[in-house]
Amino acid sequence: MTKLDPWGDVEVTDYEATMEQFGIEPIEEVVDRLPDNRLVRRGLVFGHRDLDTVLDARDDGEPFAVMTGIMPSGVFHFGHRTVVEQILLFQEMGAEVTLCAADIESYATRDVSLEEARELVVEEYLLNYVALGLDLDATDFYFQSGAGNDHHVRSKLFARHVTQNEFEATYGSADPGKLVSALTQYADILRPQSPDRVGPKPTVVPVGIDQDPHVRLTRDVAARYRDAGYVKPASTYHRFMRGLQGGKMSSSDPKSHIALTDSVADAKRKIDEAKTGGRVSVEEHRREGGNVEEDMVFELLAYHLVEHDDELDRIREEYESGEMLSGELKQIGKERLETFLRDHQRRREEARPKVEAYLDEHTAVGASN
Amino acid sequence: MTKLDPWGDVEVTDYEATMEQFGIEPIEEVVDRLPDNRLVRRGLVFGHRDLDTVLDARDDGEPFAVMTGIMPSGVFHFGHRTVVEQILLFQEMGAEVTLCAADIESYATRDVSLEEARELVVEEYLLNYVALGLDLDATDFYFQSGAGNDHHVRSKLFARHVTQNEFEATYGSADPGKLVSALTQYADILRPQSPDRVGPKPTVVPVGIDQDPHVRLTRDVAARYRDAGYVKPASTYHRFMRGLQGGKMSSSDPKSHIALTDSVADAKRKIDEAKTGGRVSVEEHRREGGNVEEDMVFELLAYHLVEHDDELDRIREEYESGEMLSGELKQIGKERLETFLRDHQRRREEARPKVEAYLDEHTAVGASN
Repeated sequence: MTKLDPWGDVEVTDYEATMEQFGIEPIEEVVDRLPDNRLVRRGLVFGHRDLDTVLDARDDGEPFAVMTGIMPSGVFHFGHRTVVEQILLFQEMGAEVTLCAADIESYATRDVSLEEARELVVEEYLLNYVALGLDLDATDFYFQSGAGNDHHVRSKLFARHVTQNEFEATYGSADPGKLVSALTQYADILRPQSPDRVGPKPTVVPVGIDQDPHVRLTRDVAARYRDAGYVKPASTYHRFMRGLQGGKMSSSDPKSHIALTDSVADAKRKIDEAKTGGRVSVEEHRREGGNVEEDMVFELLAYHLVEHDDELDRIREEYESGEMLSGELKQIGKERLETFLRDHQRRREEARPKVEAYLDEHTAVGASN
Repeated sequence: MTKLDPWGDVEVTDYEATMEQFGIEPIEEVVDRLPDNRLVRRGLVFGHRDLDTVLDARDDGEPFAVMTGIMPSGVFHFGHRTVVEQILLFQEMGAEVTLCAADIESYATRDVSLEEARELVVEEYLLNYVALGLDLDATDFYFQSGAGNDHHVRSKLFARHVTQNEFEATYGSADPGKLVSALTQYADILRPQSPDRVGPKPTVVPVGIDQDPHVRLTRDVAARYRDAGYVKPASTYHRFMRGLQGGKMSSSDPKSHIALTDSVADAKRKIDEAKTGGRVSVEEHRREGGNVEEDMVFELLAYHLVEHDDELDRIREEYESGEMLSGELKQIGKERLETFLRDHQRRREEARPKVEAYLDEHTAVGASN
């Protein structure tokens, strides 16, 4: 049995078994009710819980929300973009957006000061979110450290509705930092349903499958907590892009990822050094063809750099047939990347004054001692 | 080894061994530096930690504080008065007073709703505190549920500085409700030292010895928490009055206690039914004398109803000599009690408008869902 650890390095590879184990439904069930989306189409967003509650609200013209948390842990790279695209998908469907900067969690579980966390959240996450299309003016963005008295009180009252056994069975320990961080996350996930947000409403949380334990316990707490009548939060689950060298993509290993703030030159160099599915010799490659499954450049194209399936299919066919060499595939990757990064980094600087104005107006920074 | 449980029913009887085990100092050490006080004089307040820090501040004209929490768990009886008298002792010495209503704790550990807790705190505790002499205008009184964003954030950040092992070794479990309640108490105990209260200052917390685990871990957190430079809180420890029938005095057992809101008639009846140290027959009593150690009426006189030692000594001698019968001792108790209750209950009604005005002005009631 896999034990998922939101704070650990457990790498989930067998998604089907994990879905089976934890009762996550395949996205195919609801794909017809979703707008066309590259990640959903390609099965990169593969599962959900209760997404119907959100889609029904959309169909009935009732309010619904999408919520996600930012764990400030390093540079913002393409692996993080997958969540943002799901936020944008639901934003376009009409969802209220709630965005939480988990600075209490990063302090309690990763020894990041509130000041470091704030810097990371703004520079690495918020600017990139807005550059990617987040409508900040229609977003409830907050730092956990400034979430407000009632928010923290709710998270503490939730403690009565989770036992130490449930906590240890779900997370593997009852470490105080983790316990407090988790209870705070339950309040974060339920925040769109709080009284000052006009009460209960369907809410979807796009997560990597390693975060599912938080979703499961929040659903339990939502059902047990007094008479608040919370709607159990829904969730979607996406596959993790592998690192450029194969293996895990990590914020702390620059060679494993391309940050959205990398220079074009650095990004191209990382593509050149990436693990490919090419063969040892040109002759063998022409004969055997490339292996897209083991090609990290192709993975990057499929996740983020080629929008149209027919074009991606053409590239796959040419690569698998041996007609296209790894160097040629990398060339495509580098061109797409250059276009994307130049455009994105321009938008990012354009976003800066808007983000700073928003922060001045909306967010309180919480206690630091 | 005794394990003290702030939430349990463990009854401490061997105070000396417990002091030894947990490193609590005898009050005699500092008695010369304290104002004359009935409870201290009679050894009913018997121990302390670091009380010198508070007394030095007093001597140097530096600010210092006294802090206590109210666990809203039932009627306010004479057993509760012992803490109030210590608060008043330090108030008279010039301490800032902080008074916390632990409504989050009573929700998380005793299933009391915030609304019930608020009612209990005002009717059973606050009115009696003020009637007994608390200067509400010079007091920082608050409900945990309305303690403010920064207060709750601090309590959550403290989680990084306590391990699950320390928590289980100290409290016997890492139950989420207890863990959250304890972390909130650490913030409560350190509240007089928070930035909005002009920062670090010596603080004393008068507690029953069963609450010492909170004091110990708060002292550890104070030493470990970032660069706040908190002064480790000091504490005083008092003996628990026994119940009128012998055994434990309990809010939930009316025959075990006299509530400060009991009618004079009920109070007198409870005295009549109290366990005494009298002998089975008048003859034997005259011959053997009464046993003050086992006489709950004498205990009530010693704790609360006879101010002067020489008078208490006279009563003890007459009772032990057999000259005074249990009925006569009870008669003294009933007269003192009637005078005390009539006076106190009048003061209590006089306190009501002041308390209500204070609550309207100062306290926010926190989230209830």
